[in-house]
Amino acid sequence: MLDVCLLGTGGMMPLPNRWLTALLIRYQGRKILIDCGEGTQITLKMLGWGFKTIDVICFTHYHGDHVTGLPGLLLTIGNSGRTEPITLIGPTGLKKVVEGLGVVTPELPFDVNLIEVSEDKAKETKIEINKGFFIKMLPVEHRITCFAYLVELERLPKFIPEQAMKLNIPQHFWKNLQQGETVKIMDKIYTPEMVLGEKRKGLKVAYCTDSRPVAGLKGFIFDADLFVCEGMYGDEEDKDQAKKKKHMIFSEAAELAKEGRVKELWLTHFSPALTEPKTFLNNALDIFSNTKIGEDRLTKNLNFIEENLI
Amino acid sequence: MLDVCLLGTGGMMPLPNRWLTALLIRYQGRKILIDCGEGTQITLKMLGWGFKTIDVICFTHYHGDHVTGLPGLLLTIGNSGRTEPITLIGPTGLKKVVEGLGVVTPELPFDVNLIEVSEDKAKETKIEINKGFFIKMLPVEHRITCFAYLVELERLPKFIPEQAMKLNIPQHFWKNLQQGETVKIMDKIYTPEMVLGEKRKGLKVAYCTDSRPVAGLKGFIFDADLFVCEGMYGDEEDKDQAKKKKHMIFSEAAELAKEGRVKELWLTHFSPALTEPKTFLNNALDIFSNTKIGEDRLTKNLNFIEENLI
Repeated sequence: MLDVCLLGTGGMMPLPNRWLTALLIRYQGRKILIDCGEGTQITLKMLGWGFKTIDVICFTHYHGDHVTGLPGLLLTIGNSGRTEPITLIGPTGLKKVVEGLGVVTPELPFDVNLIEVSEDKAKETKIEINKGFFIKMLPVEHRITCFAYLVELERLPKFIPEQAMKLNIPQHFWKNLQQGETVKIMDKIYTPEMVLGEKRKGLKVAYCTDSRPVAGLKGFIFDADLFVCEGMYGDEEDKDQAKKKKHMIFSEAAELAKEGRVKELWLTHFSPALTEPKTFLNNALDIFSNTKIGEDRLTKNLNFIEENLI
Repeated sequence: MLDVCLLGTGGMMPLPNRWLTALLIRYQGRKILIDCGEGTQITLKMLGWGFKTIDVICFTHYHGDHVTGLPGLLLTIGNSGRTEPITLIGPTGLKKVVEGLGVVTPELPFDVNLIEVSEDKAKETKIEINKGFFIKMLPVEHRITCFAYLVELERLPKFIPEQAMKLNIPQHFWKNLQQGETVKIMDKIYTPEMVLGEKRKGLKVAYCTDSRPVAGLKGFIFDADLFVCEGMYGDEEDKDQAKKKKHMIFSEAAELAKEGRVKELWLTHFSPALTEPKTFLNNALDIFSNTKIGEDRLTKNLNFIEENLI
């Protein structure tokens, strides 16, 4: 259903054994990338999901480690044969950054559309990528304007065939009703509510880096199936450093995961000095048991909950 | 004396097993980097020669694969504690490119000095990095303006102590004379010629990518101790493709090495499609026997010729 891949787990600078933090989400063969630091195109190549179907690239903020891979990636996507436009989404400043970095990509075989979202409009912004497939954002607290992202796949309510048969709705209209469309047959009007059951839980993937654990995050990530969150430092003793640099320690990310009642937490964006993040995993596990230390190209497939479990 | 490292061997895009082509030259602990594609900072990190003493970065041209690593590298050099200025050298357009890419590096802890050389001034330009240590350039033939580079370390003529003693020059002035300075002692003037022997051969490293094998290259690389040259394609059958894309095949690079009477040739800047460059090594060896297929971080130490061999 939704495939998620954590492309890298580093912060600040790419390292020989650790790519910079970026997340790839695949749905129905199309892809959303969040963040694109130096080397992201290489770990993408290692993953092997292809370049041509990257439709959207979101940026949390414009520090180098989250954006310098953009021109190279766009060139490589260009070499993949893509001609359809690509959409870039990010906080105010996107145009300036894309124009600046674009000095080395003067001729791309596709258009680049920009959706620049100001900090005060971010909370109310909901961008529909495909039908029922959305990107939402929340301003968080870093040294410059920075957004957390939520990628959400809505689930259609259950279709009740017995109801449709009772109303004598011809079967070839069922799909329209299931998709939420109103159908007119002869003089009769049928609305989705007539044949659909209750709302059903969709899928949510939340991504937050770089930030302090601000209060709004709890609601933003609430009930997410996967929460990918920065943990720049693992050691509790680095909390002051985290506060100063506007990052988080593992236990703060875990606290968010717990309060937000997410299903699973992946830690990422490790400081280059944090060579063995696993050493500090317990600091998170003590608070939120379903925590994983992110690894380059850690992948997960998310599916809707089985009907009989609802 | 001079340490040379080929940091990467790829062209067009960085690959999981091949960094983009760039050359590092170290002399007396200071460093010159030529080209800086995406990921160059990672192979630099793997090499382990440090970031803080990179004083000069030269660009052959401004295609993405030669320049997109610049902002990330500058940030990493900044994190290394460097505060001394860095000099960037390249063809006209350097300022525009550096300003564009610099959109993500607004605050570096050092100044960046630019030496932008126009195509018509390139041949006569000789930039002294340290005393007797020079960078020269030659416009070559690519799809956009592109320079080949020559890094040259001059060797002082041999000092003849017998001559200095005969002239009663106090010993603490010998070094000045050896360095080419004129010395005045009381009323007497001593010039270097009075105590120095004949000119001696220094060291030369030539670097050419991306280009067709233009006529001027033969003289430019003449007698180089090492010639690092692109070989985008290995197969003779790709010659038309090379002509069209303004690149070289292995045999063309070897022909240049032979005509330029260089000591050693390293091939680099392989097309992503050329997964096994060694398959085509014979195409170069047939023409120039001291050819090596470049490998990431292939390193060589160059020294002045032993005196007794002159």
